[in-house]
Amino acid sequence: MIRKMLSAMLCVALLLAGCIAQAQDAVEAPDVPKYVFMFIGDGQGLPQINATQYYLGTLANPDAAMPTPQALSFTQFPYTGIMTTYDATSFCPDSASTATSMASGHKTLSGVINYDTELTEPFKLITEYAKEAGKKIGVVTSVSLDHATPAAYYAKVTSRKDMYGIAVQGLTGTTLDYLAGGGYAQPMGAEGDQQDVMAIAEENGWNIANTNEAIRALNADSGKTLAIAPDLAGDAAMQWEIDRLNTEAAGGDSLSLAEMVEAGIRVLDNENGFFMMTEGGKVDWSCHANDAMTSIYETIAFADAVQVAIDFAAEHPEETLIIVTGDHETGGLTIGFAATAYDTHFQYLANQKVSYEAFDAQIAAMREAGASLEDALAAIEANYGLTTAEGQELTLTADELERIEAAYALSMTAPEDRELGDAEALAYGGYEPLSMAVCHILNNKAGVAFTSYSHTGLQIPIYAMGVNAELFAGAYDNCDIFTHTMQAMGLTQE
Amino acid sequence: MIRKMLSAMLCVALLLAGCIAQAQDAVEAPDVPKYVFMFIGDGQGLPQINATQYYLGTLANPDAAMPTPQALSFTQFPYTGIMTTYDATSFCPDSASTATSMASGHKTLSGVINYDTELTEPFKLITEYAKEAGKKIGVVTSVSLDHATPAAYYAKVTSRKDMYGIAVQGLTGTTLDYLAGGGYAQPMGAEGDQQDVMAIAEENGWNIANTNEAIRALNADSGKTLAIAPDLAGDAAMQWEIDRLNTEAAGGDSLSLAEMVEAGIRVLDNENGFFMMTEGGKVDWSCHANDAMTSIYETIAFADAVQVAIDFAAEHPEETLIIVTGDHETGGLTIGFAATAYDTHFQYLANQKVSYEAFDAQIAAMREAGASLEDALAAIEANYGLTTAEGQELTLTADELERIEAAYALSMTAPEDRELGDAEALAYGGYEPLSMAVCHILNNKAGVAFTSYSHTGLQIPIYAMGVNAELFAGAYDNCDIFTHTMQAMGLTQE
Repeated sequence: MIRKMLSAMLCVALLLAGCIAQAQDAVEAPDVPKYVFMFIGDGQGLPQINATQYYLGTLANPDAAMPTPQALSFTQFPYTGIMTTYDATSFCPDSASTATSMASGHKTLSGVINYDTELTEPFKLITEYAKEAGKKIGVVTSVSLDHATPAAYYAKVTSRKDMYGIAVQGLTGTTLDYLAGGGYAQPMGAEGDQQDVMAIAEENGWNIANTNEAIRALNADSGKTLAIAPDLAGDAAMQWEIDRLNTEAAGGDSLSLAEMVEAGIRVLDNENGFFMMTEGGKVDWSCHANDAMTSIYETIAFADAVQVAIDFAAEHPEETLIIVTGDHETGGLTIGFAATAYDTHFQYLANQKVSYEAFDAQIAAMREAGASLEDALAAIEANYGLTTAEGQELTLTADELERIEAAYALSMTAPEDRELGDAEALAYGGYEPLSMAVCHILNNKAGVAFTSYSHTGLQIPIYAMGVNAELFAGAYDNCDIFTHTMQAMGLTQE
Repeated sequence: MIRKMLSAMLCVALLLAGCIAQAQDAVEAPDVPKYVFMFIGDGQGLPQINATQYYLGTLANPDAAMPTPQALSFTQFPYTGIMTTYDATSFCPDSASTATSMASGHKTLSGVINYDTELTEPFKLITEYAKEAGKKIGVVTSVSLDHATPAAYYAKVTSRKDMYGIAVQGLTGTTLDYLAGGGYAQPMGAEGDQQDVMAIAEENGWNIANTNEAIRALNADSGKTLAIAPDLAGDAAMQWEIDRLNTEAAGGDSLSLAEMVEAGIRVLDNENGFFMMTEGGKVDWSCHANDAMTSIYETIAFADAVQVAIDFAAEHPEETLIIVTGDHETGGLTIGFAATAYDTHFQYLANQKVSYEAFDAQIAAMREAGASLEDALAAIEANYGLTTAEGQELTLTADELERIEAAYALSMTAPEDRELGDAEALAYGGYEPLSMAVCHILNNKAGVAFTSYSHTGLQIPIYAMGVNAELFAGAYDNCDIFTHTMQAMGLTQE
């Protein structure tokens, strides 16, 4: 009874409030975020996040009485969700269709970016709605700018393979104010016979920043900016984080994904705010290659990039929304393996010094030089800690050595002369055999394993903080990333 | 300005409300749930839940244009969380320590139930607090009543192996008003030399219901009730759901986990409400055995049990809280496999007709009878659909047939005479070789895989609905299941 009376009193107060607000012609805007950060870890599901937490915790607390996971920048956000990720093709979807769902609110076929399953109707994107609402738009990625995930936030193509078409859409008549990350995988088209995209960028008035200095000097006066990290790895992607840190340790200087986000904030900040999507694209790539250590470093780089947004939100606490999620899981990563049972030894992973791509390059050089098995074993010990010396933590068993020898024989054969059957397809997944054998052995000794070289159907967590973050609680579909973000921003779908 | 004025007005109203409430001596109780349901799927992480959603969706929509996951009873609850599950021993914890954390709010060693890591201090349980607050207490499980997870809600022992000690604690001087599920794994102790626990139950005034009729007739007048399903599978557990449905299809009658929950509601309902913990214990067991189809059926049985609580909540919407979670992931289940890549074929799993345990029994009979390989292949085709006939969906490849032949040879050898090396340990994990070979082959053809026979470190989702369910949003530790539940129930920890 008392409660009802109070409710009534509160209703009167609220009604009065409503009348006054209306009389004042809604002098205050609705509570929507001025700044929206969307982070997508490509291929980054719960296993990738947890493996990183356990790795960092293991290294930070080697003598702890209890195993200690370490929180990542975003894992303690106040709201979490779980989303389905299937697309119109498969329960194991691809990055084109999943990013389409998050950017547009629609399901489509694997490989399609922002077109319907009939490949006739393009979708309207969150970035277009946000642009119409006056926001500046940024897209950042650790892979090439014409790759599927960044593309889904600025382009509409019936096939993700049309990387040149994607690139051109991003540079002409675009919503984008800031496009940053790696370079272009097909700057002159698939056949190399098109106008160079950098020329198109210049013609269209882009401020091109492609040195560390230029990117670090970007600011609010930089205008529409194309920022390309100068030292790229394969496929026009930014450096692998594990290799980037090696560069830094050797006195070099290589831009991080976090720095690309920092520069983006400086370029985009304005009185109407911005929407910035940042992709950690190489979590996926390293998990395709079953390279656990490299994927953990990529997740660290991703978490560092999120930290930039968290620091920004600390300065703009009433104005910022941060959403962190993945698009799908890659590799079927598990924290646990049959041979290690209930034990994990994440510290073993720290023996890995380079990405699989960097080790592939060493293998190619060994193949050219006609390296012996002993040479290969020495390179393996130097780069992964796996050893033929007896009695060590990472001593190779007879079976493991046999697997390495078989892979070595294949890797020393020219790729076009290799004969690969079903067993080799399972063992190497089309990657460099010796790299795969070594990665698998190190993973399994550490107590982690992969089951696939492809994406999997595991549903994906969402972490959200800031203005209207509560909309991202609960279980929903990846299309609801679009609808919840629209709602959070006070935007109405046409 | 306007907003500040209104805020001030609301504050005045709220202060006034506070004063009146105080003056009335808090005539209304705080908003806490009268009925609390806690569901724990043992070994049931996101992969197990998702696999079940995809399996059911695939079967229900064979001609759908798009892959269609089917929601389970609890997967659309409004609040979800993600929790860490490590214990004081490992990132891959066990059911004793994880249930201890959820029941008491404390971490401990693997294998320990409700004692600290020094094995000296017992913990106070959520069920004890709830009992003190006047609630009746129920514990339901699909496995034996003296197993680790149910035990953690009513017993305190330094080792989960002390199953007799657990059983006695549950029957004497206990918080329990309803204990239901399978039977006792060690009814007369590990050595078989103790007083039968059923006699102890009788001496202590328990109403023993151990027929289908008696359990279905339980009601509010039944008093303190021990309900034991009459037709048990191995290890004193309730039937495997896949085998239970076979029993039903053959005209038999076998109690479901859902019926045990229904009976519990009838026994426990009273003016002060209840706290009931229900464990789906055989999701874990089937994933230890890498038996995907059987684990999916166990998750269905678990979801059906949750549905009973949801139906109850529909009748008591302002009084009920339902929390659904798992304790850890088991088996490293992935939805995706290297050979099937982006495809899944969940419909293939429907060819499996029996649990691995039921098939193990067939294998034992074949061993006794000296069955030929042809006999074994016929049994495999009848129970799993895997065939040597050419051109079928589930035609065995040469490699698969070879694996089956090797496993057959081992399975036809008396267990004590088998010679198993590291490769066999990885291939069979200590289970019946032929069962494991067949399960792995069917799993992989369907596009699912396991990496371990043990628990893994994958963090675990929580789904919550009802009164104060919002407390279960976000990311936290499994100890917070205790603290959040205490808070949700308005209970104060000593």
